[in-house]
Amino acid sequence: MTLIVLNFKTYSEATGEEALRLAEICEDVSKEYSVKMVVAPQTADIHMISEAVKIPVYAQHVDGVGYGGFTGHITAASLKAAGASGSLINHSERRLKLAEIDSSISACRSSGLKSIVCTNNVATTRAAASLKPDYVAVEPPELIGSGIPVSKADPDVVRESVDAVKKVAPTVGVLCGAGIARGEDLKAALELGSIGVLLASGIIKAKDQRAALVDLVAGARE
Amino acid sequence: MTLIVLNFKTYSEATGEEALRLAEICEDVSKEYSVKMVVAPQTADIHMISEAVKIPVYAQHVDGVGYGGFTGHITAASLKAAGASGSLINHSERRLKLAEIDSSISACRSSGLKSIVCTNNVATTRAAASLKPDYVAVEPPELIGSGIPVSKADPDVVRESVDAVKKVAPTVGVLCGAGIARGEDLKAALELGSIGVLLASGIIKAKDQRAALVDLVAGARE
Amino acid sequence: MTLIVLNFKTYSEATGEEALRLAEICEDVSKEYSVKMVVAPQTADIHMISEAVKIPVYAQHVDGVGYGGFTGHITAASLKAAGASGSLINHSERRLKLAEIDSSISACRSSGLKSIVCTNNVATTRAAASLKPDYVAVEPPELIGSGIPVSKADPDVVRESVDAVKKVAPTVGVLCGAGIARGEDLKAALELGSIGVLLASGIIKAKDQRAALVDLVAGARE
Amino acid sequence: MTLIVLNFKTYSEATGEEALRLAEICEDVSKEYSVKMVVAPQTADIHMISEAVKIPVYAQHVDGVGYGGFTGHITAASLKAAGASGSLINHSERRLKLAEIDSSISACRSSGLKSIVCTNNVATTRAAASLKPDYVAVEPPELIGSGIPVSKADPDVVRESVDAVKKVAPTVGVLCGAGIARGEDLKAALELGSIGVLLASGIIKAKDQRAALVDLVAGARE
Repeated sequence: MTLIVLNFKTYSEATGEEALRLAEICEDVSKEYSVKMVVAPQTADIHMISEAVKIPVYAQHVDGVGYGGFTGHITAASLKAAGASGSLINHSERRLKLAEIDSSISACRSSGLKSIVCTNNVATTRAAASLKPDYVAVEPPELIGSGIPVSKADPDVVRESVDAVKKVAPTVGVLCGAGIARGEDLKAALELGSIGVLLASGIIKAKDQRAALVDLVAGARE
Repeated sequence: MTLIVLNFKTYSEATGEEALRLAEICEDVSKEYSVKMVVAPQTADIHMISEAVKIPVYAQHVDGVGYGGFTGHITAASLKAAGASGSLINHSERRLKLAEIDSSISACRSSGLKSIVCTNNVATTRAAASLKPDYVAVEPPELIGSGIPVSKADPDVVRESVDAVKKVAPTVGVLCGAGIARGEDLKAALELGSIGVLLASGIIKAKDQRAALVDLVAGARE
Repeated sequence: MTLIVLNFKTYSEATGEEALRLAEICEDVSKEYSVKMVVAPQTADIHMISEAVKIPVYAQHVDGVGYGGFTGHITAASLKAAGASGSLINHSERRLKLAEIDSSISACRSSGLKSIVCTNNVATTRAAASLKPDYVAVEPPELIGSGIPVSKADPDVVRESVDAVKKVAPTVGVLCGAGIARGEDLKAALELGSIGVLLASGIIKAKDQRAALVDLVAGARE
Repeated sequence: MTLIVLNFKTYSEATGEEALRLAEICEDVSKEYSVKMVVAPQTADIHMISEAVKIPVYAQHVDGVGYGGFTGHITAASLKAAGASGSLINHSERRLKLAEIDSSISACRSSGLKSIVCTNNVATTRAAASLKPDYVAVEPPELIGSGIPVSKADPDVVRESVDAVKKVAPTVGVLCGAGIARGEDLKAALELGSIGVLLASGIIKAKDQRAALVDLVAGARE
């Protein structure tokens, strides 16, 4: 089943009350069109949103540290307690060290959270997949926020990522992202072998977020 | 009025439901003994706690970024929306770059949050104070979690920090921390010119958190 | 006496043999025009250059760590042994944590190296100066490499930095940088109260580096 | 052929003139006992050492950036110009982000430098190997500097790393490190399938560095 992950970033249109409103739109569209949607709001917004909606709420980042003297860090245990069911890891706007990615994945696993490791090219996708997260999401940084969909601008990076992951860790699902906004972008992404998309500005900055989302999910159904 | 800031770090005794319970103890003791208490839980716990208690809830860290493409960052706007009224900045377990401290303070100011910048010696206290946060909190790293109170082990670092801040930024309040747990530690801290303390393990790891807190606040009243 | 610091960055025109050639030009111009020039090549180039020229050679970065288990770090002791006589610290392209700036300055002092802490605005200049390096160099990041000289585009940041440093640490010399290339830019910088400039692309990327340098130093003499 | 890489870290016994002296000992022993030795001194010491000895000189760290505005970074081009022939990457005392490891490897390749990526467990070894450096060096952090050799304390991490690398990238050589000092440690390491060792304090802190080195290399010959 196609997976659509909406990263709220720190956009004003997706912070606090606006985040709640957007999560509710995602839930509506998810039900109405029978697609699997995940919302990834800011950490401070997770508790409020997870109390209000039934679709999975993911964090945008999790530190691979446990209980103890780690002031200012975001632990998997605290995310779980706040109602999250997964987390992005190593997003291009919050890159981690290799050993940290490994411990963040482990921390998610221990707390019962799903993990999506973001990567920037085929080589790092292969490396990330070999750490056995639940998903990897390949996003060429130069296309993020560009409005030019990776599934059209650079289909090879998606296709080769899918191939590489199949070899090193066949159970890991491959998402793709960067520039995705419309149904045809999603459709192209699925045809390249990915099982879904990670997206943000294309929906969040749209004049009509619901309409943009409906246009997108149509791509999963054609 | 004496200020007592309890940093929940990522201790198991101060995460999720336990964080809520501890915040309620702090609120009780605060009322009963008429001392000003601030709790600083993990980011994901802020919303739940700020809905339940009336004492100020601070974050343990805030990034100096605004609305936009800052996935995985903790913005002042999201903390404010979740009910926080301030934040620690640059704690020894989450050190920031100089320019980041400056922008985190500015972000707090813009969102109506108070700021407490943590420092490690007299020189960095003077530097931090010159950025004009609401408070600085000097904590010699080697004493953090040691059980040896800074106000006794190294009174000079507190006294000289107070003097330095008076010269460069007299409106900035000076807290001290590291090894503080008992009423006599707090009393010594106040006698050295600080206006309060930042503490963690001494209370959170105590067998009886409420009793430990009551013993502490007595130091503000003698 | 006016101080001109040329940051070689990692420009191809200032790496390896090219770095040596450029340092020799700087030495020539320094002698001929009686101005005090400092060159700041890459770490790996310091040894070769300091053996060849007599003008001071500074590093572009130094870590505030000492002898021991600090693989991959740049120590003040190793810079001194290679012939350096100072270092930039906290350049906008290599920002450090507040506590690291403090320990880098201390490390320089212990090894007999001069220190220049780079800053981005008046507030961070005041903070950096209060740590007592030998110099601070204020450079608004948006003007770096722009070709628009800070001394003309934003004279207030220079003037206010000079004033702030006079108050908190009058022995610290104030340099300014960003967009500086020509003699008139330097002259304007000196009139604003700075004692010199930090510059890079304006000279290094010039078609005729020697001519560009001669044009610059003329600004110190008019 | 067995490869022995001696990391000089920032030890006083391996900085400046002492670094040169130690590199010369390594060269002597390398010739006398016909083992392949690599020395990895601090960046500022590379030029002097590479002019004096014929054995390969590696850097301890390289940044994955090229020519341009990267003040304070260590480029592969500058290392090559100073006479280095390779670099450690991602040592436990200088961890890098996943995307940085990838770009550091690429930078080495472009400049004709060999690359050794350090890792901390089997999962990160597999991930690092899939980025196709020349070597990976697995070092459990808790054993580094401990005097307890990884080849005896945790033989499984070496054996499983060798197996994992064979599957994902069979051309990548596997080294191991942490606690290695004596000939028997090296012998055990080779029997587990590694092609050599990365070591530091066991030799550098020895009362007689030459004798310690001779004892070590004997392990490659029995």
